[in-house]
Amino acid sequence: MTDDIARALTQGEPMAEAEGEASAVGERRRRHGGRAVGERSRLPQQRPWAQPRIRLRPTEVVSADELESIHEASLRVLEQIGMDFLDEGARDLLAAAGARVEAGTQRVRFDPDMVVERIKTAPSSFTLHATNPEHHLQIGSDWTAFGSVASAPNVADLDRGRRVGNREDYQNLIRLCQLLNPVHFFAGYPVEPIDIHASIRHLDAIWDLLTLADKPIHAYSLGRQRNLDAIEMVRIARGLDEATLEREPSLFTVINSSSPLRLDTPMLHGILEMSARNQVIVMTPFTLAGAMAPVTLAGALVEQNAEALAGMVLTQVVRPGAPVVYGGFTSNVDMQSGAPAFGTPEYMRTAMIGGQLARRYNVPYRSSNVSAANAVDAQAAYESVFSLWGAIMGGVNLLMHGAGWMEGGLHAGYEKVIIDAELLGMVEAFLDPVVVDDDTMAFSAMEEVGPGGHFFGAAHTQSRFRTAFHKPMISDWRNYETWQEAGSPEAAGKANGIWKELLRAYEPPPLDEARREELAAFVERRKAEGGVPTDF
Amino acid sequence: MTDDIARALTQGEPMAEAEGEASAVGERRRRHGGRAVGERSRLPQQRPWAQPRIRLRPTEVVSADELESIHEASLRVLEQIGMDFLDEGARDLLAAAGARVEAGTQRVRFDPDMVVERIKTAPSSFTLHATNPEHHLQIGSDWTAFGSVASAPNVADLDRGRRVGNREDYQNLIRLCQLLNPVHFFAGYPVEPIDIHASIRHLDAIWDLLTLADKPIHAYSLGRQRNLDAIEMVRIARGLDEATLEREPSLFTVINSSSPLRLDTPMLHGILEMSARNQVIVMTPFTLAGAMAPVTLAGALVEQNAEALAGMVLTQVVRPGAPVVYGGFTSNVDMQSGAPAFGTPEYMRTAMIGGQLARRYNVPYRSSNVSAANAVDAQAAYESVFSLWGAIMGGVNLLMHGAGWMEGGLHAGYEKVIIDAELLGMVEAFLDPVVVDDDTMAFSAMEEVGPGGHFFGAAHTQSRFRTAFHKPMISDWRNYETWQEAGSPEAAGKANGIWKELLRAYEPPPLDEARREELAAFVERRKAEGGVPTDF
Repeated sequence: MTDDIARALTQGEPMAEAEGEASAVGERRRRHGGRAVGERSRLPQQRPWAQPRIRLRPTEVVSADELESIHEASLRVLEQIGMDFLDEGARDLLAAAGARVEAGTQRVRFDPDMVVERIKTAPSSFTLHATNPEHHLQIGSDWTAFGSVASAPNVADLDRGRRVGNREDYQNLIRLCQLLNPVHFFAGYPVEPIDIHASIRHLDAIWDLLTLADKPIHAYSLGRQRNLDAIEMVRIARGLDEATLEREPSLFTVINSSSPLRLDTPMLHGILEMSARNQVIVMTPFTLAGAMAPVTLAGALVEQNAEALAGMVLTQVVRPGAPVVYGGFTSNVDMQSGAPAFGTPEYMRTAMIGGQLARRYNVPYRSSNVSAANAVDAQAAYESVFSLWGAIMGGVNLLMHGAGWMEGGLHAGYEKVIIDAELLGMVEAFLDPVVVDDDTMAFSAMEEVGPGGHFFGAAHTQSRFRTAFHKPMISDWRNYETWQEAGSPEAAGKANGIWKELLRAYEPPPLDEARREELAAFVERRKAEGGVPTDF
Repeated sequence: MTDDIARALTQGEPMAEAEGEASAVGERRRRHGGRAVGERSRLPQQRPWAQPRIRLRPTEVVSADELESIHEASLRVLEQIGMDFLDEGARDLLAAAGARVEAGTQRVRFDPDMVVERIKTAPSSFTLHATNPEHHLQIGSDWTAFGSVASAPNVADLDRGRRVGNREDYQNLIRLCQLLNPVHFFAGYPVEPIDIHASIRHLDAIWDLLTLADKPIHAYSLGRQRNLDAIEMVRIARGLDEATLEREPSLFTVINSSSPLRLDTPMLHGILEMSARNQVIVMTPFTLAGAMAPVTLAGALVEQNAEALAGMVLTQVVRPGAPVVYGGFTSNVDMQSGAPAFGTPEYMRTAMIGGQLARRYNVPYRSSNVSAANAVDAQAAYESVFSLWGAIMGGVNLLMHGAGWMEGGLHAGYEKVIIDAELLGMVEAFLDPVVVDDDTMAFSAMEEVGPGGHFFGAAHTQSRFRTAFHKPMISDWRNYETWQEAGSPEAAGKANGIWKELLRAYEPPPLDEARREELAAFVERRKAEGGVPTDF
């Protein structure tokens, strides 16, 4: 049972007993030998699964007036320049709702009032349902949720290097993210299982997500039928009728605009099918400043906002009240090479301003944990933490690519999954409130210990030390000599050991046998029908 | 001339010309080859030297009421438990100012009103002067300043491993921090030059700081005479008379309490001598939760605050208006081993709450960039960025250990100096305001490009691309194949190359010859006198 394993991992190894503490730091800089994760127990300690909240006030990078200017400029873009919608059905719906479709073209222009009015029906928060009810997520308000890496075409680990995505690695990454508590949902396919034929890939891939894991999932908008198949599979796995599924959003899809100012056919079909059934749209313009968006951050954000608003309008035209998330993904490129950059100072600020915009529209906000690094080195870590800084202080509700994203999304890394889970666990702990009351302010403990003493033996310490602090999976706090004797392990190498232990310990979560059979029959039938055409 | 070199580094290598940009990203995920730092020019690009400001609203982890509770509890600690002051002169001064000294003991207790009244004269901001006037720093308000690593007993680099501190490495680390623009001051000795005899070490060490660099410096409070020698040396190097030096704080010292609730003799002498001459005290309790402070964060902060307030009171008793900085250094220990941990979720929150407390008292705030990592790996990077997140969003005015701190302070790392300078440069760029106006919102550029186009060739891009984005020293954005062909360099290895190039390019900054001679004569004379006794 996955949950039993998760609980076992959560409890982790027993703490050292009192002898251990009493021996500790007397002299300021002298550090006694800690113990590496996994020396006694091989399985990492984890915080229990719990959806975190961001109770901190989000950081406001631009003033309320500046935010309003971005909003107004976006409306002007939609009114005067407009946006290309590459699907006639979508254009017809928008026209019927009052948008102006230029005859003989794909261009749609929006009256500012129409945009403002239409997006008002988007919900400020909703529940994203999982097959395991314990893994349902609140999306919106001060809730936040962290997803797996998604959509990488390649995969890498320290042993086997980098290779094209395949089903074996795809399944392994699902197993890891299922076991890692700070990964709350699957943001897509952790890596593309290229070895499954494209016509049936979504069937096998979603089968794997629903049978190897029990956290909320994503479906790609790559053609109408794929969305419909995914919706049906989630319905079966949750054991619901269609009406209940419509009341309970259980699947989400990321809609990327083809920036600048264009929404392609499969993405539009994704909105049409998913929103019609009250499933979740994450509307994310891919606005790289200097490439597909203006080189200035304000300009890139105006474009992002225009595209996000247009997509949001369509969701609400399709079905007022359908859940939609405002996605921010504005970053910059290396102006020498055109290479996209992530976790940059530009990225941090646009992530925060994106949150300001989403809150202005009272919808949940999506950001990401991203890095351009090719190796699991210091760069991979600092770009990720800078991204998380931007996302968390931006008030992110749905964090895509939380664990495992490398190389600007071009590969998913096994070791990065583990290191990111460490980062996400630390962020969860950071988000814990600091309790300030007479008990925690510990006057009597200070009175007991007095000047020049130490607190190791104090009753106040003894009754709390087991749970007082966040326990890392990877961070090595051993003194230099002990660490050196252990072979001078670096973080990536430790992560390598951890993912192997996790895969060894993995067992699939329970799934009702009748549902499993129905799901298998559906996949078999759809495969027999040939899946979906692959020539779109 | 160092400044010429710094300027040359700042300009960096020429940008690729238009051909380079036009070839860039058409397809979303395809990345063209970037270029490693140092392939054409070996010297890293840097932002120009400029002191950054934190215009963002600091993050408030505890409510105003909770902050007040911590304040009140600290006053209660000082009133009822009191603190040991291990110097009679300090006790006498405090007694004369209204504190209660317990007869026959070192214990001093403070009336809450006395504390509140006395700290009111501490300035909210001041200038910390450098020998080079261009490197003066504003300390307080929304200004922030980043220091070098300080006080490490050991030093390490990738080539030579870890070794005991010595003058050669000490000088090299000074040279590096002098050349790195985001390092604004010397937070102490980057590494302890153990091979200089302790009786005269401060003379040679400060000589090196004043002749190899021209940024503001720190002096250790390790006995009265060392403080006085350092003050005199700074006075000579700046070419001032004593009265002017008293008007222009030009030296700072970190005062660590020996937590819990004790201030040792040399630290007290540091306050007495430095504050008397209007030089800067950074009052920093070393409150490791679970060891020298209660295991609860609120308790550790109450202790930190009590000790900080007591030290601040003494500075203002010595000389009302003397500059003093509120130092926060509360972290936690590994409760299994007693090893101190840094950059943890606990550290982040106490760093932020420390800032709330400093602002409550209207004095500048000190925090640090810290990591417990033994290797320059992902851990070193993520602990540092988490520390920076805590410090920056905590509103830090004086960031100690900004560049080079490893292993919980037990070694200074050459490569970490470079990687941290990269992080600090990114933080500086993050702190740049995002300009929102008609020009940056780029409506006409979007009109020009239109749906489905790209912005590489747009006039709006062409006129801005050279300076639009922060340029990293280390971050590798090349595509995987190009990066692999270049030998798959990792961040630590690139940092290794950069520090070597910087040392090759280094030249000392100018120093007026008369001042230099006077300084040399002073050092010679004090050495001839035997320096200072080393048996305190």
